[in-house]
Amino acid sequence: MAKLFIGIDLGGTNIKIGAFDSDLNIIGKTSAPTENAMSPDDVVKRICENTEALIKNISSTLDDVAAIGIGSPGPVNLEQGLIVAAPNLPLFRNVPLRQMIVDSLNKPVILENDANAACLGEFTLGAAKDVNDMVFFTLGTGIGGGIISNGRIVHGHKDAAAELGHIIIHPTGRLCGCGQKGCAEAYASAKSTVARAKEALEAGAESSLSEIKDITCKDIYNHAKAGDKLALEITEGTADALGLLCVNMLHTTGPEKIVFAGGVIAAGDFLLNQIQAAFDKHIWPMKKEPLEICFATLGQDAGIIGNAALAKQSCPTN
Amino acid sequence: MAKLFIGIDLGGTNIKIGAFDSDLNIIGKTSAPTENAMSPDDVVKRICENTEALIKNISSTLDDVAAIGIGSPGPVNLEQGLIVAAPNLPLFRNVPLRQMIVDSLNKPVILENDANAACLGEFTLGAAKDVNDMVFFTLGTGIGGGIISNGRIVHGHKDAAAELGHIIIHPTGRLCGCGQKGCAEAYASAKSTVARAKEALEAGAESSLSEIKDITCKDIYNHAKAGDKLALEITEGTADALGLLCVNMLHTTGPEKIVFAGGVIAAGDFLLNQIQAAFDKHIWPMKKEPLEICFATLGQDAGIIGNAALAKQSCPTN
Repeated sequence: MAKLFIGIDLGGTNIKIGAFDSDLNIIGKTSAPTENAMSPDDVVKRICENTEALIKNISSTLDDVAAIGIGSPGPVNLEQGLIVAAPNLPLFRNVPLRQMIVDSLNKPVILENDANAACLGEFTLGAAKDVNDMVFFTLGTGIGGGIISNGRIVHGHKDAAAELGHIIIHPTGRLCGCGQKGCAEAYASAKSTVARAKEALEAGAESSLSEIKDITCKDIYNHAKAGDKLALEITEGTADALGLLCVNMLHTTGPEKIVFAGGVIAAGDFLLNQIQAAFDKHIWPMKKEPLEICFATLGQDAGIIGNAALAKQSCPTN
Repeated sequence: MAKLFIGIDLGGTNIKIGAFDSDLNIIGKTSAPTENAMSPDDVVKRICENTEALIKNISSTLDDVAAIGIGSPGPVNLEQGLIVAAPNLPLFRNVPLRQMIVDSLNKPVILENDANAACLGEFTLGAAKDVNDMVFFTLGTGIGGGIISNGRIVHGHKDAAAELGHIIIHPTGRLCGCGQKGCAEAYASAKSTVARAKEALEAGAESSLSEIKDITCKDIYNHAKAGDKLALEITEGTADALGLLCVNMLHTTGPEKIVFAGGVIAAGDFLLNQIQAAFDKHIWPMKKEPLEICFATLGQDAGIIGNAALAKQSCPTN
């Protein structure tokens, strides 16, 4: 049996686990739910039991496993292997997740934050597999990010890098949940996109959205595609913030590709074209920039692939 | 004789050259003027003649030189060793500077852009010598930048990284020389700081600056320190843009130190305190950020030191 690498993506609603061969082909995967009230011990138990079951299902044993990579919602302390806090797992405070899994499975374990792991997944096998420098944005309730520079994840001092949703683009603008004013996230996250639409409706804007009781980001994109003026303004506002982020990231780490992921990209080319138009509007005219803006291609598997890639990287002989 | 590393800083008004030992102690330095009308051949001749004279002055020969690092105003193509263009040397267009110096001196030559080289100087021996992740800003006519992530210069795809003056902080704001709207440079460069003061005076603002015929950035800082209200507003505007850059860079590459260099830092603690206050105003309140904002310490020598460090890095055995 060839060596296996395990990639684990720990989230607030479920744990995804994948087993990969040394070329990072997926051999098998599984998932199990997490619940808000679970203790760290319970979560680790669920991770390890499901990992062992997956390995058994693919007719392997723990002896075949070379290393395990696990991605966690942040903030995390990567050097110490700690989850400092996890927004959707309130009992997690300074949990030594890496060591707990080592103690249970007796295998090398690498911890990474979830956005970096998904970024590395897209870098390794997804939308950015052909480049050396990329930036990754996850568009969800908030906006997460990851940066790869010359093939390496940019962690920064004390793992502070890549809080890309909190780049300030309108210093006197909307208040962000983080306490700053004018973060990109305060305009372009799914939550902020919905909030801007609701505020406009409450202020009396006419729109086909007014017939919907509990507006979602998906509704806004669907109504914009159908030609509703307000919905279109709202999605253009989202794209404008994302286009500005692309300009600012191009001028910072100089990516060859910027990859957007997350539920919102289901809006498809409609959204991508709006982001590209906003980038083209804001970027300097002096030269054609060698930057491609695109959507992620690995979907829900980006995390397990990226974590398996981390596990593989941690084994120098592979 | 121990091995020597030569650091050369090519600028629009002069060429600085330093000779360093393998611990990067400076053994000797020299400089020679450049003129706007000089051809690439004339500049290379001047570089090489002065380098050879310096080496002779320190009782060494070219045989003692292990490698040469040279920093050039950009844009440069580092892989090919080309100066694509140089704002203050108009005859420079796609000049193969690296190869021309190799041909003349028959030594390994590394090319870097000038801001990255100065950044590496401060990283190696200056204000950021004790950290692994830094961001560097040069405040001059424009705003240049450099980023070091986990000990390595961030170059980006096609050397496009670290155009940090062109991060957009006010998307509907002042037009920058680059064609974008609202770049930090359009507020905080020496040129923009003076322009904002002149515009305010033309609009009728009262100020002790109105008595000066040709206002400089230095005048503005001096009058601000003396309590002039307009001058203070202008310097606060400059510091606000720089504080926003610090927030955005912290959220991007996660530096431990942000180092400001350039003529403007002669304004001293007055300016540094204003930048820190602007950072404190804009940064999220959720945690104390482990970031130090400070001024460069190497002055005019940062470039030659950084280029010598590059030369040393290029020799694996040193």
